[in-house]
Amino acid sequence: MKLEKLVGDRFRERPADCVIDSHALLVRGGYMKYVANGIYSSYMPLRRITRKIEQIIREEMDALDGQEVQLPVALPASLWEESGRYESVGKELLRFTDRNGSPMVLGMTHEEAAVALVREYGQSYLKYPFMIYQIQTKFRDEARPRGGLIRVREFTMKDAYSFHTSQEDLEEYYERCLKAYHRIYERVGIPEVISVASDSGMMGGSLSHEFMYLTPIGEDSIVMCRECGYKANMEAAESIVEAEEEETSEELSLVGTPNIHTIEEVCEFLGTDKKHSCKAVVYQKESDNRCVVLFLRGDLDVNETKLRNFLKDEIRPAEITEGCGLHAGYIGPYNLQGDFEVLYDRSLKGAKNLSCGGNVPEYHYTGLDVERDLGEISYHDFAKASEGGICPCCGKKAITISRGIEVGNIFQLGTKYTKSMNMTYTTKDGKSEYPLMGCYGIGVGRLAATVLEARHDEYGPIWPMAIAPWQIHLCAVRPDNEEVKALADQLYEELQLRGAEVIYDDRKVSAGVMFSDADLLGVPLRIVASPRNLKKGILEAVSRDKSFSAEIPIQGAADEIMKLVAEWKA
Amino acid sequence: MKLEKLVGDRFRERPADCVIDSHALLVRGGYMKYVANGIYSSYMPLRRITRKIEQIIREEMDALDGQEVQLPVALPASLWEESGRYESVGKELLRFTDRNGSPMVLGMTHEEAAVALVREYGQSYLKYPFMIYQIQTKFRDEARPRGGLIRVREFTMKDAYSFHTSQEDLEEYYERCLKAYHRIYERVGIPEVISVASDSGMMGGSLSHEFMYLTPIGEDSIVMCRECGYKANMEAAESIVEAEEEETSEELSLVGTPNIHTIEEVCEFLGTDKKHSCKAVVYQKESDNRCVVLFLRGDLDVNETKLRNFLKDEIRPAEITEGCGLHAGYIGPYNLQGDFEVLYDRSLKGAKNLSCGGNVPEYHYTGLDVERDLGEISYHDFAKASEGGICPCCGKKAITISRGIEVGNIFQLGTKYTKSMNMTYTTKDGKSEYPLMGCYGIGVGRLAATVLEARHDEYGPIWPMAIAPWQIHLCAVRPDNEEVKALADQLYEELQLRGAEVIYDDRKVSAGVMFSDADLLGVPLRIVASPRNLKKGILEAVSRDKSFSAEIPIQGAADEIMKLVAEWKA
Repeated sequence: MKLEKLVGDRFRERPADCVIDSHALLVRGGYMKYVANGIYSSYMPLRRITRKIEQIIREEMDALDGQEVQLPVALPASLWEESGRYESVGKELLRFTDRNGSPMVLGMTHEEAAVALVREYGQSYLKYPFMIYQIQTKFRDEARPRGGLIRVREFTMKDAYSFHTSQEDLEEYYERCLKAYHRIYERVGIPEVISVASDSGMMGGSLSHEFMYLTPIGEDSIVMCRECGYKANMEAAESIVEAEEEETSEELSLVGTPNIHTIEEVCEFLGTDKKHSCKAVVYQKESDNRCVVLFLRGDLDVNETKLRNFLKDEIRPAEITEGCGLHAGYIGPYNLQGDFEVLYDRSLKGAKNLSCGGNVPEYHYTGLDVERDLGEISYHDFAKASEGGICPCCGKKAITISRGIEVGNIFQLGTKYTKSMNMTYTTKDGKSEYPLMGCYGIGVGRLAATVLEARHDEYGPIWPMAIAPWQIHLCAVRPDNEEVKALADQLYEELQLRGAEVIYDDRKVSAGVMFSDADLLGVPLRIVASPRNLKKGILEAVSRDKSFSAEIPIQGAADEIMKLVAEWKA
Repeated sequence: MKLEKLVGDRFRERPADCVIDSHALLVRGGYMKYVANGIYSSYMPLRRITRKIEQIIREEMDALDGQEVQLPVALPASLWEESGRYESVGKELLRFTDRNGSPMVLGMTHEEAAVALVREYGQSYLKYPFMIYQIQTKFRDEARPRGGLIRVREFTMKDAYSFHTSQEDLEEYYERCLKAYHRIYERVGIPEVISVASDSGMMGGSLSHEFMYLTPIGEDSIVMCRECGYKANMEAAESIVEAEEEETSEELSLVGTPNIHTIEEVCEFLGTDKKHSCKAVVYQKESDNRCVVLFLRGDLDVNETKLRNFLKDEIRPAEITEGCGLHAGYIGPYNLQGDFEVLYDRSLKGAKNLSCGGNVPEYHYTGLDVERDLGEISYHDFAKASEGGICPCCGKKAITISRGIEVGNIFQLGTKYTKSMNMTYTTKDGKSEYPLMGCYGIGVGRLAATVLEARHDEYGPIWPMAIAPWQIHLCAVRPDNEEVKALADQLYEELQLRGAEVIYDDRKVSAGVMFSDADLLGVPLRIVASPRNLKKGILEAVSRDKSFSAEIPIQGAADEIMKLVAEWKA
């Protein structure tokens, strides 16, 4: 490919709307173009990268005895009604009607379509286990697309579905798949991706893992233990905090706190700290709009996923209106009356000498002793794990919180879909059972963007050889020099004959423009022909990451370069 | 791949709803499954076929300097508003709104998205020509999906868009693309596909071609000349008929024709033939609901595409209500009065002694002499070409009508989209011009189904080696015989080591079941290990089309088989 003919513009300025580097570089390097909120078109360099990633994923899925299929993008709503998700999933499921008024959805995941495809096939235990997968367009109507390819609405995803007749078989396959995922990350060039236990969310099922690339720009929080290696997504991580040791228990007393609302203000006013306060957070349940008042220690935050799972309901921050018995800014667990559900986080268990709202405007209590003053109550885990917390695995106070990009997830779904969609098989003994399912997803575009986050410098991407849009970037510096041009032209031919993927820059532009474009395309091996090099009888070879440079004699250069490509591929 | 583990059911009975063979065989062979009207899922064998077809298309597009890109499936309506097609295209364009109420469409073709992708890039004449293409899901909300994969709503399509600065350059590229298309059909195994001139329809532009596989089950009609080789789609074909020679001109007279409505009834009642009648067909225009009365010779049919193009409006069959001055069944060109447009097909030019409606219920005229009785009127070409008609190219009376499946189309779009979407470039002389566009489409699934229509017998598909789901179908007949099993197992390993694609049937089923399954999978080369063959020291090799059979010595069998695969691939 001649660079001169490559469709797409490259430019130097960082676009103002690009918050993260991968987004900025994908736009600046002519990889993609904005079409609508969370929807992009890909130019050739990105399409070449995503095709290579797809092929790596395909090979790993085939190695797991996966069978590549294709399920539709547009699905009849009736399929999603069978599983119950037509109702239960929110607005991110794009619903529409076709010309005949039939309700349909755009597939955001394909459990229903997968079950429908194999429901008749899988009627005997003899057919199990099996796995089908596809690499296909998905649409998820995200409220807030962000970060370029990190969170989009339309994306290409590999989604796989496995079917089993026993939990052991599912677990064994799940384990194989987890390993295959790590191989995929290694092959595309980010072996540092870790797997963490996660919440299953709308997918249902029991056990699930997310694959995380740790980076401060990630939108997920990951809870890790410095001591034992415990790892979990914030949504799924247990929160254990040490109760503050208190020798005495103060008296409960109502204190005037005029014009004071936030925890920070209360603590400052009372001269105490957040750990010695009891915070109230109020939600409303989607199903019946009833209020839920949740109390937790003032230094902690609510993990809404845990609350949602506990309530088995969607929730939203409550609108606190007059007459409901709640006084915003002054809500406390003592003497609280009204028609709402009250929940207590386990961080409050045994806590003493806390400040809390007085349930009267402009008043707070001090000296709250939870057991003494609230009597017998149940505690549950509703808080987000926090830096310095106690590890639920080893019990040491060694929890750290990191941020990461989720680059894949796998789920043990159990019988959630086979049961709701009535897929059964006959066992060896002639009984009818529901098969168990696993599902396994990787977003291709997000993975490309994450590799870019992990592998770039200020000048552009540093693509790993396995997924680079081209393997060799050949520059003919000063192509107006006939000898340089002839040499580069010939090398271009020879490299292509040897099966190399070459992008060839023979434009009459300065070496500066040439090299900054090459930096933006991020091809791992750069070969430079120039009048100066020609005089020395060599070509210059430089790696994109600058860790390697060499002079290659013109004689036999093509073979020498192919050797480098082969080495770097491995 | 072991056949035992292949997901999908194969069965003998032809499904009642399958009208054409390819549909029946795709369902019977476990290639695809119905999801919704015009929407199917593909099992592994079909996905392997479509991936091979996609790769052949990709190679041919790359050879034309095409750059693979990816455009979104879900597009903002604003893009289609720019080109004017958001309004002009009918219900086959699926319109919907996203969670924020923004109007969107599902891409059924991507001219708008392609122009949007390259609009900024193509600002200088130096960038031209260039071509971008994608292989991507499309959705077209067809009113009547039919024939399995022949006419669906969701499908995978290769669509390419080229951009040029002169008509000559566009034409030259168009010609190259036409040849590439013929190479694609040849490579996938149906070299008999022909290209015919066609109507550009909703795509706009001047010249276009369709690629047709001729078959009685096709839904398109193709007009061909036996003498000069002229070929055109029915929609685009000129209709020329010879005027009947008449020595005398009868008198015009009104005749009672009680209870007689159709052309057939009138001719029978009057003892004449359809060529001696003048037929009226009434349409209503979509834009203003006004009626259009079209007269043509009674033996011809209306070509609605020509009428639509003439009126520059959508049309539908008229609802003839009382009071509009028209009497259904008795409409004629003489003495016709009312508020409607009247058009005459050129088949009426110089016609004499015709019967026609009397514009009074239950009366017809006989003896109509068009020139004498209707005065000066304009004639246009509104009729469908007909068997035995006159060739517009060589003038000979040698027109034949065939049916065919459209397996691709290419268009010279001119500036239709660049103009409406304001894409311009600066010429060498500093002037601003609109680039010219071409577009080039092939539906992947329909192409697979068409190959199947062309290459099958009553037992199943006969896939060409280039696109077959596997290259070799290995059968171990009587795998309970340990020697047979060991031999087949070893051969399976050896063939895979040599890079062959093998489907291996070692199920404990009868040879009959084995072979009928093999017929349904249509793999070109079948290798049979059996106790009888083993005794003879051979393996049996048979081609799926039965044109080839050979005994292959067990010693060195793998290499021998690989030779066959290589030969058949070429």
